This record gives sequence, structure tokens and C-alpha cells, in this order.
Amino acid sequence: MPQRVAVVENILGANDRLADENRARLDAAGVLGLNLMASPGAGKTSLIEHTVRALAGRLRLAVIDGDIATSLDADRAAAAGATAVQINTGGECHLDAVMVQGALGQLDLTGLDLLIVENVGNLVCPASFRLGTHHSVLIASVPEGDDKPYKYPGMYRGVDVLLINKTDLLPYVTFDMARFRQGVEILNPGVRTFAVSCRTGEGLPAWLDWVQAAAAEGRRGAA
Amino acid sequence: MPQRVAVVENILGANDRLADENRARLDAAGVLGLNLMASPGAGKTSLIEHTVRALAGRLRLAVIDGDIATSLDADRAAAAGATAVQINTGGECHLDAVMVQGALGQLDLTGLDLLIVENVGNLVCPASFRLGTHHSVLIASVPEGDDKPYKYPGMYRGVDVLLINKTDLLPYVTFDMARFRQGVEILNPGVRTFAVSCRTGEGLPAWLDWVQAAAAEGRRGAA
Repeated sequence: MPQRVAVVENILGANDRLADENRARLDAAGVLGLNLMASPGAGKTSLIEHTVRALAGRLRLAVIDGDIATSLDADRAAAAGATAVQINTGGECHLDAVMVQGALGQLDLTGLDLLIVENVGNLVCPASFRLGTHHSVLIASVPEGDDKPYKYPGMYRGVDVLLINKTDLLPYVTFDMARFRQGVEILNPGVRTFAVSCRTGEGLPAWLDWVQAAAAEGRRGAA
Repeated sequence: MPQRVAVVENILGANDRLADENRARLDAAGVLGLNLMASPGAGKTSLIEHTVRALAGRLRLAVIDGDIATSLDADRAAAAGATAVQINTGGECHLDAVMVQGALGQLDLTGLDLLIVENVGNLVCPASFRLGTHHSVLIASVPEGDDKPYKYPGMYRGVDVLLINKTDLLPYVTFDMARFRQGVEILNPGVRTFAVSCRTGEGLPAWLDWVQAAAAEGRRGAA
């Protein structure tokens, strides 16, 4: 269906131009932007809650929450102490740059250090749409199984930070960490990886150190 | 973008016509078709393995496995004893009726009682594409969390069978079964529900009884 392909290419091209605009706005304000992606239920909102609470008083942080319906995630981010903007996609399976542009308009970027964009829970479609953030962060989750890099290569190839969440469940499920890491290594050699448990807090300090160092770099770039 | 909407409507209309053709072929052969959907890692392939092994000698069963990449799931279904056809979508986030039509051409339907179509792991997009199967079956998974019906209403509204898998993990995660079931009830009152653990086998007999009864109905319809 060549017609359909042309339409898709036009949409992606328009999205890229808007993503560049979003990036320029973040850069001008010295705000680090993270695009947080994962399957439904891998722990995106839990990671945001931990990050907001741990960095309170050290980084000024806002969250843009993308969901098909409800404001449950934005409510949780706000309860943790972040400025939160909810995007309801109304059925769309991913965020795109125009949705993020609308949400940016509701934030005072000059008062921020870090913006986390929580994408729709989906291991496929969000990988195709740049938002203008600086880093693409994927959360894998132990109970999802060790075969996911092999089965969702587009997502695993396109990110530059990977968290392996729910390590507290390793004793109760079948998950071969060596097989998982080998799949990641084939697609995305040397990708920065943190094994964490948002339930117990294990492994989160290394993630928080990385976030703070990356945000400091962003501020230096804007100065 | 009205142009884009028109294209999407044309695609869905064409898909529906092919889905009707698929359904007619299954009906003529007396084969029960199930469209199995879930998030990545919720347990679609594990449920198929259990179902194939448990019904061996009682139902003649084939599996069509949809994945973006690899034949890992079809290999598992075949190892369990099913005839298995792999569809690699090459990036597409869901199966559609034309992909299933192609796979049906590789199966001898007259020798079958039950066809399970394992959709791409995705809690959004597969809900929009009819395949021609008789039942849409969703697997929810305890570690995904109890908020999923609220956040993915399109999927929860559109199915007629729901499995809640990984009940063996209930002691180790935060999952409020009453909150989950209330969300389901709002969207899809009275939907047939089975709470199961593919790890321990708990709850699977009721699912297997339902599958056998539904397949027997299909045969009566064709006779």
C-alpha cells in the first residue's frame, strides 16, 4: 500500500520537526528531558515517584504523563511532589512531539532542571516517535521474561539507558539474566544499564547519580 | 488531519471484510478461533503451552504466532506439540486479518478443532483489528498492577474472555484484586474471567473446560 507509506512518512517528518523545536526549548532553558518507555506495568510511574522523592530539594522536576485514559499516573507523580501535566491520547498508542509541545506550553521551563516524559505503556509504537528529549530510557521488568530484547528489537535498539526493574521478583520467576543481557548486547552494545527494584530501593542510587550528572551537564550547556 | 482519518477508516474497512472471510473459513471447517492478546510478558505463550499439552489427544490444535521478530513463540508452541505458523510483522504492532489469512493458507483446517492466534504483545493496537476469530481473549498479569483496566479501556472493553495470570505472585507484589475487578466490571460487565497461574497450574482446569465446551459448540455449528 504505497499511499499509506507516503502518509506515514509525512507524519514522521512533521513529528521530527516538532521534536527539534521541543529540544531547542529544553536546551534554551537548560532542562534535561527524558523519554521514559516500557510495557504496561513495568514500573514507569513507580520509578518517577522514587526519583521525585529522592531528588526533592536538589533538582526541580516536572513530569508529563501520557496515557490513553485517566490521570492516575499524573496524580501519583503530583502526590510525590512533582509538577505534573497529563496528556490523554484518547486511544493513540504512543506520545508524539505535538502532544509534548502542547504540554510544554503548560510548564514554566525556566524554573526546571529535569523533565520526565512518561510515554504510553507499549513496547512497540513509542520507539518510532521522537519527542525532543535528550535521552530515551527503557524500563524492562523481570516478570516480563528474559526474551523481550529478542522479540522487541526496535525498542531495545533505540534507547540509550536501560533499567531492569523488579529484581526483587527474581527468586519467584524464571528469568535468565545472562540471556537477557546477551539479547541487549546484540542490539545495543554497551548501553548504560541499571538493575533496580522500585519496591525495595535496591540499585536506585546509581540511577539517581546518573540523572543528577546528566541534569548538571544540561545546565552547563545552557549557561 | 482528516486525510489521515480517511486512510485509517479505509484500512479498517478492508480489514473487516478480510476478517469476515477468515471467520467463514473457520466456521465451514468447524474450527474454534481464539485471538489471544496481552501486554508483553503477561503469559500468552505459557498459556498456549499448557493448553496444547493438556488437550493433546482431545482437541486437534494449531497456533498462529504473531511477533515483530523471531520465531521463539512458535518454537515453544511446536515443542509443546501444536502445529505452529509464525508471522513476523516486521515492526507492525498488531496482527491484522490479511496476515492471519496468509497464515490460514498454511494450515489444513479440516484436520483441526481449535486455532489459537497469539497476537503481538501490546495492550493498545491489537484491540482495533478484528481477525475473524470467535472470541477475543485477554491475559492480564498480576505484576502489571491493578490499574490496567482503567488505563487501557479499549482493550478491556473489547474482549469476551479475561484471564488473570501469575496469581502465584500475589504475595510478592501490590495488587488489589477488588480494585482490578471493579475496573473490569465498569468496562465489561459480567465478562467471563479465569484467575490462573501458568507456573503452578492453579485455575487452569476451568479455562480448559471452557475451551473444550466452546470448541464442541463450533463443531456442532459446522455439522
